[in-house]
Amino acid sequence: MRDLESLSATQAVKALARREIKATHLLLSCLDRIGQRESTVKAWVSLGKENALARAKELDKGAITGLLHGLPIGVKDLYDTYDLPTAYGSPIYAKNYPRTDAVSIALMRQAGGIILGKTVTTEFATFKSAATTNPHNSKHTPGGSSSGSAAAVADFMIPLATGSQTAGSIIRPAAFCGVVGFKPSLGKISIAGVKSLAISLDTMGCFGRTVEDVALGVAAMSGDHQLAKVKDLHNKPRIGICKTANWSSAQKETANALALARHAAESICKGVIGDIKLPKACDGLSQAQSRIMLSEMSRSLSFEREHFTKKLSPQLIKQLAEGSALTYEQYSKDLLLAQRAIVSVAQLFSDEVDILIAPSAVGEAPTIKDGTGDPIFCRGWTMLGLPCINLNITSGPNGLPVGVQLIAGPGKDHFLLSVARAFALALPDPVLRDQA
Amino acid sequence: MRDLESLSATQAVKALARREIKATHLLLSCLDRIGQRESTVKAWVSLGKENALARAKELDKGAITGLLHGLPIGVKDLYDTYDLPTAYGSPIYAKNYPRTDAVSIALMRQAGGIILGKTVTTEFATFKSAATTNPHNSKHTPGGSSSGSAAAVADFMIPLATGSQTAGSIIRPAAFCGVVGFKPSLGKISIAGVKSLAISLDTMGCFGRTVEDVALGVAAMSGDHQLAKVKDLHNKPRIGICKTANWSSAQKETANALALARHAAESICKGVIGDIKLPKACDGLSQAQSRIMLSEMSRSLSFEREHFTKKLSPQLIKQLAEGSALTYEQYSKDLLLAQRAIVSVAQLFSDEVDILIAPSAVGEAPTIKDGTGDPIFCRGWTMLGLPCINLNITSGPNGLPVGVQLIAGPGKDHFLLSVARAFALALPDPVLRDQA
Repeated sequence: MRDLESLSATQAVKALARREIKATHLLLSCLDRIGQRESTVKAWVSLGKENALARAKELDKGAITGLLHGLPIGVKDLYDTYDLPTAYGSPIYAKNYPRTDAVSIALMRQAGGIILGKTVTTEFATFKSAATTNPHNSKHTPGGSSSGSAAAVADFMIPLATGSQTAGSIIRPAAFCGVVGFKPSLGKISIAGVKSLAISLDTMGCFGRTVEDVALGVAAMSGDHQLAKVKDLHNKPRIGICKTANWSSAQKETANALALARHAAESICKGVIGDIKLPKACDGLSQAQSRIMLSEMSRSLSFEREHFTKKLSPQLIKQLAEGSALTYEQYSKDLLLAQRAIVSVAQLFSDEVDILIAPSAVGEAPTIKDGTGDPIFCRGWTMLGLPCINLNITSGPNGLPVGVQLIAGPGKDHFLLSVARAFALALPDPVLRDQA
Repeated sequence: MRDLESLSATQAVKALARREIKATHLLLSCLDRIGQRESTVKAWVSLGKENALARAKELDKGAITGLLHGLPIGVKDLYDTYDLPTAYGSPIYAKNYPRTDAVSIALMRQAGGIILGKTVTTEFATFKSAATTNPHNSKHTPGGSSSGSAAAVADFMIPLATGSQTAGSIIRPAAFCGVVGFKPSLGKISIAGVKSLAISLDTMGCFGRTVEDVALGVAAMSGDHQLAKVKDLHNKPRIGICKTANWSSAQKETANALALARHAAESICKGVIGDIKLPKACDGLSQAQSRIMLSEMSRSLSFEREHFTKKLSPQLIKQLAEGSALTYEQYSKDLLLAQRAIVSVAQLFSDEVDILIAPSAVGEAPTIKDGTGDPIFCRGWTMLGLPCINLNITSGPNGLPVGVQLIAGPGKDHFLLSVARAFALALPDPVLRDQA
């Protein structure tokens, strides 16, 4: 048996439910790993060792509580927790102790999950690099804004961690760190108790090392417990490759990842894999997403701008000014464009294709001084509210992970997970197949 | 000139912007009225007199800040405020001082609004009667859950107050108290910083004494400042009467209100006013809304249920148990029903009608011992996410106000306000015409 901290979340909860391992031991293994690696990776804002150990002991003694019984979990520090400070990546909220858990965190605890600590988020989940490094190379970014969660899962510090995506904050860090990241349908997980960045876009999700793990995480976070049972595919899905309108931004390794993904998908797909162009209604969607996000941010963070300007980063102040300068008329137009794109893409999924495979990021993780990476390949999918999952496919020129995302039609979260697992099992490298 | 506290919000901001009245004096008039009436009406949880007066003085001295410059505002105690305790109608949150304002409250302050105090909400915006009485007869309910806001505006304690609607919590109390209540489109106002009850349904809005007042309030709360300029109608709208599938619940006074509304609408309407039946896809919509609400509540309040069961009312505990007993499969089915209803009603609004007129409530306000009234005539419209506005039309057997709601198609908030004003001006009674 491997070290406990390297068990996948699904393996761990199975072993815990059968009383083959103890929650206490699993937790201590994770803490050991954190102890060894945290000074390099810097994934954590705070750890609640004592509470977590007390809870683990309780769970080891008591009945099996639920889906996550005894599983240690990392929580992005954008989510409120009643027993750990919650700073949203900003000095404004130093020593902020919320009165409650975010709804999704309360649901994870109810399912038996043990919140071990809070993971690093960039400032209010925006773009300025935070302290976390990429576990594969500490000179490189883990991506943002869910930096700590993606890095901690990749580095075997924790089997499961929560994230959130407004532009590309789950899929991009998952790709950069080489883990599975799942952004379910918009609205699948309650946003209550998570600091709001852009209300039309904020989507909650999680990171794990396998498809089954992220299914488990989102099952608990949403209350849709059936989601944890990833079903086998009975019919071959129609799969298309979607390079998107931003293909000119893609680096060589992203093209390579897409080619490898196409090859793997051929064995599970119905008919031939074609290249799918998004409907004309999607023209300008990434730009509209970007403006909607800036406009909503300028309203969401107006309290902080009014009362704590000096504690905001210059980068964020600049973005808030950009958002404020956009007219409400422009914002309304952009929302209308998004609405039309949503309708036309729903039609595309109904008529032509079941799953799209698209780039997760421009390329491998840039160096930290170059920021957290460009979310351009995620913006449109986030705006469309479609379920997306990142899988690691290959590596780039610096040996860092490169992924692709699989995208399903509106509300097809269950189906996406089934296809993602089948797809992972069709990958050539046995290490990559472990993502299933 | 009338007493300052009886000015409408729109009259007040105009006079304030022209420096004809002082914010300080307006505030003191409101405080006087509150002093006279609060022991009967019990609309307020807390007042921030000193902060409000200090802010009023500041605004009287400085430049005109925005749409709401110098206007006193009541805030439903479901919205976070950084300078006033926020209890969400529950003893669990006694002495809860949030770190920030809800986004919509920060925007109101940014527009020059003065938050005078927090108004009574029922427990987490659910159904158990709170302390507030109906200003027209203290034995009767003001409705819920936005009880204090509706009553305070009706009683001339404050010209404008915020509310929220998950089932019927704006339209119903507005009808019971005889004020204008505006529930804009779902998502028009950010829900960030407002205690979440049911994430698919929670809709923010406000109460005023005129259509222009609620337009002003939602303009500030949403950031869509153009909304404050209610435009004249250039074309006659197609108006239909929609008795809904729940018509058998309507009391005589509601039938009377609808007949009066039909008569008034005839003078502003294109062609003849017909009775509109909702599409077949809406069958069961109110029931689906009710189940979706219970199911989401059971998740939203799981933290409170876990940690503070003894501080929840027996009524709420019962509802949470009902919500937990519903399967996720049922919830998914109900969401699908709602999605299909939304699409079919959008088609109805495109093809057949511009405005629907429907009952706001079963009848006039019941007595307090009978609860806060049935939201049955609001559930479906809330689920559909359509903009709705209540106008006072007549009175019932006990002399209490009875209203109707005007409903526009998806996203047609601006248009709804224009029609509502024209409609109010077409009402026979000059007092009712003052609602324009």
